[in-house]
Amino acid sequence: MTTPSRLTLADAENALSAQPFSALVGAEILHFEPDETVLRVALRADHAQQHGLVHGGVIAYAADNVMAFNAGTVLGPWVVSAGFTISFLEPAQGTELIATAALITATERLAVVGCTVRALDETGAGTVCAVAQGTFRVIHRQQVDEDA
Amino acid sequence: MTTPSRLTLADAENALSAQPFSALVGAEILHFEPDETVLRVALRADHAQQHGLVHGGVIAYAADNVMAFNAGTVLGPWVVSAGFTISFLEPAQGTELIATAALITATERLAVVGCTVRALDETGAGTVCAVAQGTFRVIHRQQVDEDA
Amino acid sequence: MTTPSRLTLADAENALSAQPFSALVGAEILHFEPDETVLRVALRADHAQQHGLVHGGVIAYAADNVMAFNAGTVLGPWVVSAGFTISFLEPAQGTELIATAALITATERLAVVGCTVRALDETGAGTVCAVAQGTFRVIHRQQVDEDA
Amino acid sequence: MTTPSRLTLADAENALSAQPFSALVGAEILHFEPDETVLRVALRADHAQQHGLVHGGVIAYAADNVMAFNAGTVLGPWVVSAGFTISFLEPAQGTELIATAALITATERLAVVGCTVRALDETGAGTVCAVAQGTFRVIHRQQVDEDA
Repeated sequence: MTTPSRLTLADAENALSAQPFSALVGAEILHFEPDETVLRVALRADHAQQHGLVHGGVIAYAADNVMAFNAGTVLGPWVVSAGFTISFLEPAQGTELIATAALITATERLAVVGCTVRALDETGAGTVCAVAQGTFRVIHRQQVDEDA
Repeated sequence: MTTPSRLTLADAENALSAQPFSALVGAEILHFEPDETVLRVALRADHAQQHGLVHGGVIAYAADNVMAFNAGTVLGPWVVSAGFTISFLEPAQGTELIATAALITATERLAVVGCTVRALDETGAGTVCAVAQGTFRVIHRQQVDEDA
Repeated sequence: MTTPSRLTLADAENALSAQPFSALVGAEILHFEPDETVLRVALRADHAQQHGLVHGGVIAYAADNVMAFNAGTVLGPWVVSAGFTISFLEPAQGTELIATAALITATERLAVVGCTVRALDETGAGTVCAVAQGTFRVIHRQQVDEDA
Repeated sequence: MTTPSRLTLADAENALSAQPFSALVGAEILHFEPDETVLRVALRADHAQQHGLVHGGVIAYAADNVMAFNAGTVLGPWVVSAGFTISFLEPAQGTELIATAALITATERLAVVGCTVRALDETGAGTVCAVAQGTFRVIHRQQVDEDA
């Protein structure tokens, strides 16, 4: 009774739909396993920067969020990002952004997660536009209630 | 005639308003100097994550964007982010997010920029919620036209 | 004739033994493949910080070096580090440090590499003490000759 | 009586000389203030990589160590590195490496520190070869005793 049940994809979808900013950007979660957590953003005109490419902020949002969900597969729902690093490799454009996270290592209270972000066109072809690594830690539920 | 004029705050405001994603998030640029470039996001309900705090993606967007503008003060308008690191220190909430960037060092083609992000309440009080460091490089205008 | 042959483990061992700092620290290379490049440091008393644990500088050296070698498996011998991020998870102590790198993604001129560093005791047991991600790029041989 | 006295430069010098790895690399501490903590490495032949330039591991060691000392100016002596990011800008060579750290922000238990590393020749001229940002946290003395 003391071990929380593992979260399911439905739990993750509920958490994502409870994030107003994810609704604003327009994200959905496709997989939710430690070895593969996938977030998809269907690209829109208002995701662009001034040259028509996908804004780095959208890519960073996708990476941060998919890595936090990935950390949640092992740490549970009360997870915060301690920080992340992202490298931008190629300009991003196309019809969808696919951010894929995989657990690198975890202790009871901390998880380190890796992530690649791909921008795909309508044929499904595309390249890796960014690679990220993030660190996530467990917080107490009470702490969140006090902060919010 | 070969040296481009230094960009002005008006140039930066024009570039920001040409970014559809910045319009979606709602950002304005307040200062535009190498020693102090400031981006402001007036916080809204749709900037939140599931616990009512500001989503890390909004904070990462603000940091990435203000650092890119800061790099533009010395590298000119054709700048892309090579990547950045962000550390989240405190939960962010309040009425506005103030992201402040300062140039750390630059060569002709590369700039390294530091950034702090503060979340302020209506009295103007608040704390540093994140610290970032980013690397930005010059691209050729032609390269952007080909990509976009 | 224009495509360089792929580097071998012997090539990597030669490159490592041509690094005076690697001799000072005491490192050897055990595997040299894109999917698994392994560097080993047999721990000595002079690798410690003031509390007897392995100094973070030794761990950072091992991560940076094994990732650069990993990048060399796909980019060839003229590779430099553009930078890396390292997260320290647990205090490191034991008899050897094993730094393992794997290629995340690469273009013709750039590679992004991930790395975990483990500290093992004489029984071979141990934990991940650090996780890193680095970016490496090709340089021209002439550029190195001019710099050095 | 409960507030620890602020550490002095002599305390920092004692801590540095108690680090066997710092003795191996050869480092000295020149300043020890929150706004400016400086570590110097007199460059030797055994600091080089295979092309005669300073090994990235030496630069990373210097950055990590000077940032940890800088964090100690506000957090006291029981500080560990949670991680850092380093960007390498220029090949490093010359007669000495000067790593300079400055506090960016701190809470009671956490400090974020920025750092630049310069390689200087015998005339004192040189350039910034690397920029870093690190996060450091307080640990309990007992925790260290148990680990070591």
